Amino acid sequence: MSYSMTELIERKRDGGSLTAEELEWIIAGYTADQIPDYQLSAFLMAVVFRGMNAVELSAWTDAMLHSGDVLDLSSTTMPKVDKHSTGGVGDKISIPLAPLVTACGVAIPMMSGRGLGHTGGTLDKLETIPGFKTRLDPQMFTRQLDELGLVLAGQSETLVPADRRIYALRDASGTVPAVPLIASSIMSKKLAEDIDGLVLDVKIGSGAFMKDAESGTALAETMVRIGASHDTPVVGYLTDMDQPLGTEVGNANEIVESIAVLRGEGPADTTELTYVLGAEMLVLAGVATDRADARAQLEAAVDSGAGMEVLANVIEAQGGDPRVLEDPTMLPSAAGAHTVTTERAGYIERCDALAVGRSAVRLGAGRQAKEDEIDPGVGISLHAKVGDAVAAGEALATVRYNTEDQLNACVPVLESAWVVSEEPQPTIPLILGEVT
Amino acid sequence: MSYSMTELIERKRDGGSLTAEELEWIIAGYTADQIPDYQLSAFLMAVVFRGMNAVELSAWTDAMLHSGDVLDLSSTTMPKVDKHSTGGVGDKISIPLAPLVTACGVAIPMMSGRGLGHTGGTLDKLETIPGFKTRLDPQMFTRQLDELGLVLAGQSETLVPADRRIYALRDASGTVPAVPLIASSIMSKKLAEDIDGLVLDVKIGSGAFMKDAESGTALAETMVRIGASHDTPVVGYLTDMDQPLGTEVGNANEIVESIAVLRGEGPADTTELTYVLGAEMLVLAGVATDRADARAQLEAAVDSGAGMEVLANVIEAQGGDPRVLEDPTMLPSAAGAHTVTTERAGYIERCDALAVGRSAVRLGAGRQAKEDEIDPGVGISLHAKVGDAVAAGEALATVRYNTEDQLNACVPVLESAWVVSEEPQPTIPLILGEVT
Repeated sequence: MSYSMTELIERKRDGGSLTAEELEWIIAGYTADQIPDYQLSAFLMAVVFRGMNAVELSAWTDAMLHSGDVLDLSSTTMPKVDKHSTGGVGDKISIPLAPLVTACGVAIPMMSGRGLGHTGGTLDKLETIPGFKTRLDPQMFTRQLDELGLVLAGQSETLVPADRRIYALRDASGTVPAVPLIASSIMSKKLAEDIDGLVLDVKIGSGAFMKDAESGTALAETMVRIGASHDTPVVGYLTDMDQPLGTEVGNANEIVESIAVLRGEGPADTTELTYVLGAEMLVLAGVATDRADARAQLEAAVDSGAGMEVLANVIEAQGGDPRVLEDPTMLPSAAGAHTVTTERAGYIERCDALAVGRSAVRLGAGRQAKEDEIDPGVGISLHAKVGDAVAAGEALATVRYNTEDQLNACVPVLESAWVVSEEPQPTIPLILGEVT
Repeated sequence: MSYSMTELIERKRDGGSLTAEELEWIIAGYTADQIPDYQLSAFLMAVVFRGMNAVELSAWTDAMLHSGDVLDLSSTTMPKVDKHSTGGVGDKISIPLAPLVTACGVAIPMMSGRGLGHTGGTLDKLETIPGFKTRLDPQMFTRQLDELGLVLAGQSETLVPADRRIYALRDASGTVPAVPLIASSIMSKKLAEDIDGLVLDVKIGSGAFMKDAESGTALAETMVRIGASHDTPVVGYLTDMDQPLGTEVGNANEIVESIAVLRGEGPADTTELTYVLGAEMLVLAGVATDRADARAQLEAAVDSGAGMEVLANVIEAQGGDPRVLEDPTMLPSAAGAHTVTTERAGYIERCDALAVGRSAVRLGAGRQAKEDEIDPGVGISLHAKVGDAVAAGEALATVRYNTEDQLNACVPVLESAWVVSEEPQPTIPLILGEVT
């Protein structure tokens, strides 16, 4: 069947809906270079304004999903559940969470991305571990999942190729922020992992893609609906990203914090979120009777070191040096250290995630453009979070830097993140909502 | 100055406005191949939804206008006024109107277009005159305007090149129907003609681009505003295109009707519209004191044959054979004739312009795609218009055709245009509104 792309654009523009066949035709035609970029970008802009209904959304996701290979992980005997975060500043949850969940009997075929702009990426963080490789061929991927129950890899080139091309076009054409496009992009990649369930962490706040709970809820609901249309249960959490998560921002910095969480010595918020999301994964996988049981299993995996052992095995299997878990000084670390202090005593009213994220990019920890290199050893350690009391002259953060230019570019932005108030300030709730 | 096109798209998408410098940068960058099609098409789709404010509209038009040459017609001593119609079915007004207006002392540097889809084009009609050329080089154009006061030419390649490229992109990306884009496209081309005033004929109805008076009024008001921002007075009329204009549809057919109007023997609606629009041109040019005076001058130009003489001179100057004005059988005429009749007696309730236009395309009188050839001799003569009484078996239309296949494709669509009612039906008003 063949259609007129112009007519399909016009119908979406005018508020009409497209059939599954028409949407499949668009994805297939675009990936086969038969539909030009300028038609798809106009269509995507019409979707920004008009949205997609549930039938369109399911069909569009399905067409993306089937634009390339879909993993066949039927040889893995454990139930398979993954977690996805919409990204933020200091969000290293995947790294402590995955080994703990796997230690409790759940396989995780995790494919992660790189950082862009003020948000960090799991791959960049993992690659600060000496020797660690995130490019695995499909045979290695499947074998490691069967043997260890956990793979921490980059997106395979052969999975959902349509998403890579469409995402690049959206990025350059101002068509990124449309809930159906975001949701289908995420869900097509996750459904291609052949998983039995998915836990979503939708970040809300200044450092997140979604600035308010309303838009975050809409995104979570949309992804839950796509999951249901593909017989894959999805549970969504809305969590705070108005301040950074945890105390470390930067690539090696975040590995250090992840190891601390696995030891039971991590900051309260990172630890709590690891348990909340991990517990949901155990329940979805059917290896725990309820959240309380699941949480007890995860805590036991910390206490016994079983989570740490899974991560050590994964690091070794992927070419890395697992001794880093015992000796974090093996991680890259920038030469210079600079302390940011508060002039006045009081209470932290604000520690703006976006400003911290942007200051980290200026330090070299992140990328402005996709082709930029990152500096693995630079980062920011936060010593005070919202609600904390601070004395005059007390340190708010320590910056690890490699060049004075980068430090000078970073510090004013980092300082702008903080608001210190004379009045006591409430802490920010971590878990803002749940969508099932 | 350089900008990020992605950021400009995002700002328009989010309802913000762009500065004149930013809009000029977009037009200049696109015409210089520095901004890719896929970014401009996404921007244009955002404009479809968000519109442009008065400042943006003026700047966008201005940037288009200055993307190429602008005519210098200062050697022409007569005042210069043009007319533009938004296009319809049977709309041949330019052809009788221009010679009559010029006969009254107004120069018209008219540049017209070709037909596309169900709407006809002045150039296609003129080229049915044996030998008539519509491609004039700039020197010929200026000399003829100085000598005869009238040129009936195609768009020069060197005028407003940005519009040609942007229009082609809009056509293929579903971004045609945005009032600011339509208005700036028309006005940039008209302002490049170096005219002192412009009369707009905005068609409203099934056979027009604008389906209702509200959208037609918005378009007319927008063009009047652009004219004002460029010190060029513009008067807009809204006129009916729910039924075809006049009695002839097709290229040579419409020349025959145009000659009849110049002789004072044309159908009532075509004649009336010629006088109304022509009178406004004389008033705008300052050669008539008011509309009544202007109309009397135009009627005199019919009676004296002065209008016919101007057209004869223009035809001769542009390589055509002016004897066609005395002997319309010199025009191409299709071999076959087929009559469409009404089975039942009654009153014409509807003679749908869109259906008549589409049936003419199937006959070969128009183009579905830009590269299609037209057949100059085929066409449809209408024998009954809305409000007319018809007897059972009476002819509604005569189709001149060249192939049976085309006739068979045409007739069912043409028949579907008509609704005959038992009750007497009111005629459709020709002039629906006026915008100044």
